[in-house]
Amino acid sequence: MRAVGKNMAFIVVREKGFTVQCVVTAQPDVVSKQMVKFAAGLSRESIVDVHGVVSVPSIAIKGTTQQVEIQVSKLYCVDKAMPTLPINIEDASRSEKEIEEALQAGEKLVRVNQDTRLNNRVLDIRTSANQGIFRIQCQVCNIFRQFLLSEDFIEIHTPKLIAGSSEGGSAVFKLDYKGQPACLAQSPQLHKQMAICGDFGRVFEIGPVFRAEDSYTHRHLCEFTGLDIELEIRQHYTEVMDIVDRLFVTMFDHLNNKCSKDLEAVGRQYPFEPLKYLRKTLRLKFEEGVQMLKEAGVEIDPYGDLNTESERKLGQLVLEKYGTEFYILHRYPLAVRPFYTMPCYDDPKYSNSFDVFIRGEEIISGAQRVHAPELLAERAQACGIDVSTISTYIDSFRYGAPPHGGFGVGLERVVMLFCGLNNIRKTSLFPSRPA
Amino acid sequence: MRAVGKNMAFIVVREKGFTVQCVVTAQPDVVSKQMVKFAAGLSRESIVDVHGVVSVPSIAIKGTTQQVEIQVSKLYCVDKAMPTLPINIEDASRSEKEIEEALQAGEKLVRVNQDTRLNNRVLDIRTSANQGIFRIQCQVCNIFRQFLLSEDFIEIHTPKLIAGSSEGGSAVFKLDYKGQPACLAQSPQLHKQMAICGDFGRVFEIGPVFRAEDSYTHRHLCEFTGLDIELEIRQHYTEVMDIVDRLFVTMFDHLNNKCSKDLEAVGRQYPFEPLKYLRKTLRLKFEEGVQMLKEAGVEIDPYGDLNTESERKLGQLVLEKYGTEFYILHRYPLAVRPFYTMPCYDDPKYSNSFDVFIRGEEIISGAQRVHAPELLAERAQACGIDVSTISTYIDSFRYGAPPHGGFGVGLERVVMLFCGLNNIRKTSLFPSRPA
Repeated sequence: MRAVGKNMAFIVVREKGFTVQCVVTAQPDVVSKQMVKFAAGLSRESIVDVHGVVSVPSIAIKGTTQQVEIQVSKLYCVDKAMPTLPINIEDASRSEKEIEEALQAGEKLVRVNQDTRLNNRVLDIRTSANQGIFRIQCQVCNIFRQFLLSEDFIEIHTPKLIAGSSEGGSAVFKLDYKGQPACLAQSPQLHKQMAICGDFGRVFEIGPVFRAEDSYTHRHLCEFTGLDIELEIRQHYTEVMDIVDRLFVTMFDHLNNKCSKDLEAVGRQYPFEPLKYLRKTLRLKFEEGVQMLKEAGVEIDPYGDLNTESERKLGQLVLEKYGTEFYILHRYPLAVRPFYTMPCYDDPKYSNSFDVFIRGEEIISGAQRVHAPELLAERAQACGIDVSTISTYIDSFRYGAPPHGGFGVGLERVVMLFCGLNNIRKTSLFPSRPA
Repeated sequence: MRAVGKNMAFIVVREKGFTVQCVVTAQPDVVSKQMVKFAAGLSRESIVDVHGVVSVPSIAIKGTTQQVEIQVSKLYCVDKAMPTLPINIEDASRSEKEIEEALQAGEKLVRVNQDTRLNNRVLDIRTSANQGIFRIQCQVCNIFRQFLLSEDFIEIHTPKLIAGSSEGGSAVFKLDYKGQPACLAQSPQLHKQMAICGDFGRVFEIGPVFRAEDSYTHRHLCEFTGLDIELEIRQHYTEVMDIVDRLFVTMFDHLNNKCSKDLEAVGRQYPFEPLKYLRKTLRLKFEEGVQMLKEAGVEIDPYGDLNTESERKLGQLVLEKYGTEFYILHRYPLAVRPFYTMPCYDDPKYSNSFDVFIRGEEIISGAQRVHAPELLAERAQACGIDVSTISTYIDSFRYGAPPHGGFGVGLERVVMLFCGLNNIRKTSLFPSRPA
């Protein structure tokens, strides 16, 4: 609100991150001076109904997303906000660049830190950048589903509250379920495989995944939204990578083409370069990745896993050589994958598995699973797992089980990395936080 | 498998609930007698790859869903099932009617009970009826989302693991979250309202909902899939009922028109009458419902709630009078609704709330919410709630909150009642079960 004398007031009205300037001018029989005063005196973030005429101002308007303004004839306050807010949307919408430029010009602008934002999330999510982030997130889910439905997948819902402890072991949330031990599912792995054994052919699920992570990093959440798929394999595990390839290229294309306003809104506050990706996603063998790193002077155990640092380095090398920030690394060493991963037929030191990277960070983990109960028991034993504790899992493959594989990806991580954001809490609507 | 001498074998192959007969005939240079023997000796439920020529048999085939057969030239066993299965799909696919008719003819057929099914769910879900049920469930979700996206809703994901205890109080699953008390969300109520206060306008969520129910009834699950929506109200809470009306009519139409094969598969095992519903959903005031029951000789407290029995009775009366099994009952007495329900402007003994019924059972509960913090505190107090325990909830309405409302519905219950099934465990892929 800004009053200009007693006869005029400017109000910026916002809806879903988009703003328009409203002009309240005293005019006989239409708008009284009291009305102008009332308008100028409204508290920020109050909810209003505005009636008026849309017009093109003679001087271009700064600071709103619309290039038109509204000449107000009626204005109602639907709900009054408290006069002093814990954070101002203007402050919460500012980019680092603005703050630093102002500082160099001798002006100190308010910087709203992450904790204050999360403590006042209802206000924080009103910024244009946040509105954009969650509309993009909605589209990621939508494309994920529409693509898979068109490829003959069916959507399933598997239990999150499960008896006993999850397949992972560590980092499990435990609870009491009517006097019996239970836990929160760390992934829908077991149940999506059961759905495949149950003859559904191709399944996917979008649902919460729980990890009792101790580390509070920029890329981990205790609860996130998992996008999971599992499918019968007809010939080779490359069929699973084919889905990754086409699904994500379709998704990135859609986001770039249909969500440009939202991407702009995010970029205004958090500038980022558009993701570089190829029409046909690059597939590198793990061995090739190790070789590239070796040539760049990074020594890697050829049968060990990559650490975060070498993943980043490899991302950089791949970008330089192939011009893409999105690629698949496959045929991982068997030793670094879960016991249920299918060994390579031609060399059992490797496995029919893959990880997918965006901007040097891992976002997807996938593989063909072992569907033969004898091999599964053998692999579990080799990995030091007491086979008797997973007999139900192993038994589900005794009734005729097709070769199958799948992958899982975190929704928040896809949005974070596509938009080049620096913290996963920015892409979780109400992130769970350590006590 | 059925061998006919040494030169011929019939195999029924099934995929996703659909079956076709394969004929393996010994022929020089194509199929050997050993091959016929191998085919006839396969264990049931083994996974096979079949190559052959599709043909129309001279005599119509009984017992398969396809009217063609396959003359096999090659047959590979991809995965062998164990010779004796805990349940046979043939037994699990039988209708009550078949069992009873056979019994009258002096033949005792196997009846697979619910517990045996759930203990062997991987086999149980291979029946045509179950394949149909979960494809229908997938379509319910898909229509729900596509309808709402086309109406400018955005999809959100709210936390299921929350600090403190949920708004409900009783029936909450409690757990330890890094040394702090936490619980599983009984509904996304609080967070979807926060998303509305956060300027998203219209939101929906599909996600798990947890209720530590003690009762093991045909219509309750400890974990089910909630379909939840919340939207800004411009004029009146009827806007929320308008969404229910158009959304569900669109959904029912789609199921009837596009899922007829799946509905038929369900109906073959569990016969049901198609749901009767109107083009424009009937809306009855609670007062009118009470009056109808009164005229039918059922005495009801006009400011109390309906019990299951009177809900069923009213469903019957509505069907007789209006010819619909799907209707909305609104303006419930304020006293029987949660404290956050908006009282009626013209009569605060009633509230801006509604329930929706299918075949005499409640499936949806919805309302306008109180968005004014003072009234919310007052209503909480009147309902005997300690206001200090819900101060965060109340505070989220102090920063400018639009009038809003919404509803929630259980996915499993929609599918169960649309298909006239008698137990909600039939529409949950892997239902959680009492210990």
